Amino acid sequence: MTFFGLTEATVAPLVRELTRGDLDRDETRQRFARAAWTGISEPGDRVAGALVAALGAAGALEALIARAQPVEFAASVADAGGELGSEELAEGMARWAPRLASGLAVIALQQARRFGVRLVVPGDPEWPIGVDDLGAHAPIALWVRGDPALLTQATGGVALVGARAATGYGEHVTMEASSGLVDRGYAIVSGAAYGIDGMAHRAALASDGVTIAVLAGGLDRFYPSGHEALLTRIVEHGAVVSEVPCGTPPTKWRFLQRNRVIAAMSAATVVLEAGWRSGSLNTAAHASALGRPLGAVPGPVTSSASAGCHRLVREFGATLVTTPDEMAELAPRDDREHRRGDGLGEPVGADGRHPAARGLPPDAIRVLDALSTRAPRDSGDVAARAGLSPAAARATLGMLELDGAVTASAAGWVKRRTPAAAR
Amino acid sequence: MTFFGLTEATVAPLVRELTRGDLDRDETRQRFARAAWTGISEPGDRVAGALVAALGAAGALEALIARAQPVEFAASVADAGGELGSEELAEGMARWAPRLASGLAVIALQQARRFGVRLVVPGDPEWPIGVDDLGAHAPIALWVRGDPALLTQATGGVALVGARAATGYGEHVTMEASSGLVDRGYAIVSGAAYGIDGMAHRAALASDGVTIAVLAGGLDRFYPSGHEALLTRIVEHGAVVSEVPCGTPPTKWRFLQRNRVIAAMSAATVVLEAGWRSGSLNTAAHASALGRPLGAVPGPVTSSASAGCHRLVREFGATLVTTPDEMAELAPRDDREHRRGDGLGEPVGADGRHPAARGLPPDAIRVLDALSTRAPRDSGDVAARAGLSPAAARATLGMLELDGAVTASAAGWVKRRTPAAAR
Repeated sequence: MTFFGLTEATVAPLVRELTRGDLDRDETRQRFARAAWTGISEPGDRVAGALVAALGAAGALEALIARAQPVEFAASVADAGGELGSEELAEGMARWAPRLASGLAVIALQQARRFGVRLVVPGDPEWPIGVDDLGAHAPIALWVRGDPALLTQATGGVALVGARAATGYGEHVTMEASSGLVDRGYAIVSGAAYGIDGMAHRAALASDGVTIAVLAGGLDRFYPSGHEALLTRIVEHGAVVSEVPCGTPPTKWRFLQRNRVIAAMSAATVVLEAGWRSGSLNTAAHASALGRPLGAVPGPVTSSASAGCHRLVREFGATLVTTPDEMAELAPRDDREHRRGDGLGEPVGADGRHPAARGLPPDAIRVLDALSTRAPRDSGDVAARAGLSPAAARATLGMLELDGAVTASAAGWVKRRTPAAAR
Repeated sequence: MTFFGLTEATVAPLVRELTRGDLDRDETRQRFARAAWTGISEPGDRVAGALVAALGAAGALEALIARAQPVEFAASVADAGGELGSEELAEGMARWAPRLASGLAVIALQQARRFGVRLVVPGDPEWPIGVDDLGAHAPIALWVRGDPALLTQATGGVALVGARAATGYGEHVTMEASSGLVDRGYAIVSGAAYGIDGMAHRAALASDGVTIAVLAGGLDRFYPSGHEALLTRIVEHGAVVSEVPCGTPPTKWRFLQRNRVIAAMSAATVVLEAGWRSGSLNTAAHASALGRPLGAVPGPVTSSASAGCHRLVREFGATLVTTPDEMAELAPRDDREHRRGDGLGEPVGADGRHPAARGLPPDAIRVLDALSTRAPRDSGDVAARAGLSPAAARATLGMLELDGAVTASAAGWVKRRTPAAAR
């Protein structure tokens, strides 16, 4: 039994700190491997998810470290009852390889210990089973600050999401919604962004309710920084969750993937206020694709901050909701089956398509995320940051250069400041 | 060929004044009979509608005057391809008889002449064919002030309706909707009430559009009186319509029936602002029952003036609409089939059920309409005013007395001022 090039003496104490109860050697290895995978693959990587499901996190990691031949790799997945083509495995290995340094996982675990971050994996009693409906796109593990036991309450809870650019009306309605749902016994799940998200958490805390914030970056640094005090309070009274390890910055890609976790964790999603292209529509699309009930709060047709909500009702079959009671109806507490949704097929946006980024391929979003407007980076660095193979990174950089979104110099690639195709 | 106890010399000049073009003797009789029927039966009387459809207006009127035996009456209806039971015919005759005085029709026609009112009957080029979807509940004739030729434009037009108690928001959105639809070539149909209706007409006039007001009472007196100037302008530039003859006051029953005409006339109905129990929800229910597209404009969930609109979207399948373009989509101009709806079965509310009067039977609404809080009336008078048989009027009065809604004295029946069951 190996520890991926590390010693058991290095790994075991680190893993033990992150976990409740005793672990045997294999459990320790599996947990370490899951932690490592959250840094090696980008959130929502279907091939990584299927691979871990077939071979176990440790087996998959070992094969990766051993640079398995894709054809043999695919055969062993098939032996384990999984199904992955050698080509997609080869592509996966190419995009995972740039991040395959065992030191990174150790650093992430050390940081986690420093910040009191726990690791929750599928099968743990704390695991929010709703995310399993994401199938191969499900998180491989979740990092948690606060009380991990509260995560199970997300399963019957309601996600309250909306625009950063909220109006007084939107904030008022969010406050009523959040405190009303808390009074009815629901946990409030949201993304801790400015505007609607922040108000949802605040009102839940003010009503002594359970609230869970799902972040796009590592839990060593709270984002947005203006919500550091709020997130600290959520840690004290609720839980803050991420599927990426400490040290991972939030990127556009990770925000989009974070949204799928919010939608999948909760029994229902309600959009309280959202512009025509608000990111919260992406959360709504995930909820809808998962067969989770989706609600939208209407507002004045003269307010662009409600245009996205109206769009959800008109075009995406969202239920119009106006009161906490109507929101609670979306996630009935006496109908436990309801909570799990229908798990209808592939989640929308698993390919990274976001209303605001429509037409921009997932790789392009991730490469733009990996670039700076000032510091030039070489394509290998870009590949590692984007979680793409060097070849894919180079091809995407070339495409984006043609679009005028990025420029190359001798020092490396930079993102242009206001490219048409970028965010 | 008789003229219902009158001479041709009395009838023909009156009828001729109300009609364009030449009429032969039979057409004159039929038109006079239709005019008489609009006063004899209450709007939406299914039995009257079916009878006129089977025997023609003149034949039906003659049989009524001759006090035909219900069984023979039913047989002659069956011979003509109609279907009416002798019992419902007997009940119909009992409720029509109290109003069966030929002098009333003559007075109505004289009043119509005085006010420049025209009579439009099915088959006329001006007839708004949408109302035919009401089947036996369709108007027997329509009285019109203004340009009757504009009525055909209602068929492809949009009904914009809403609460009397409109907010500044509702009026603003109505103005945008009405002028935007006029700009796109749509006629605006509404009920000339205060609030949303009035704004819909005003904005249409201001945009030089076609607008049609449907009233619940006779056209000799405009209701509401505060809209007399507005209705005079609609007469000059559009058309004002009613299915009841001059001299007929608007009653709750007639408002409810008027709403079915608004919905049936138009290609689509949009509710712009409505409280939880607004009368405009009755118009919406008619539109929906007729298979006509129904739209509702959302507003702040904190505004009770939008609660009815949200209810329509949540409970009655209304399409949420936010712009004139989205409203126009409900009544596409290039899809003429769309205009006619599906004509799905019996219209809701043909029985007079109104959200605000739920639980109160149609006869009770009509009897309450027929009573005064001050002037006592005997049951025969009440029967004639309510368009009910004396027996039905007496029975209903007794029921309402038990409910405490009406009281009897030696002088007659009066309505109590704030009865629980009344309006």
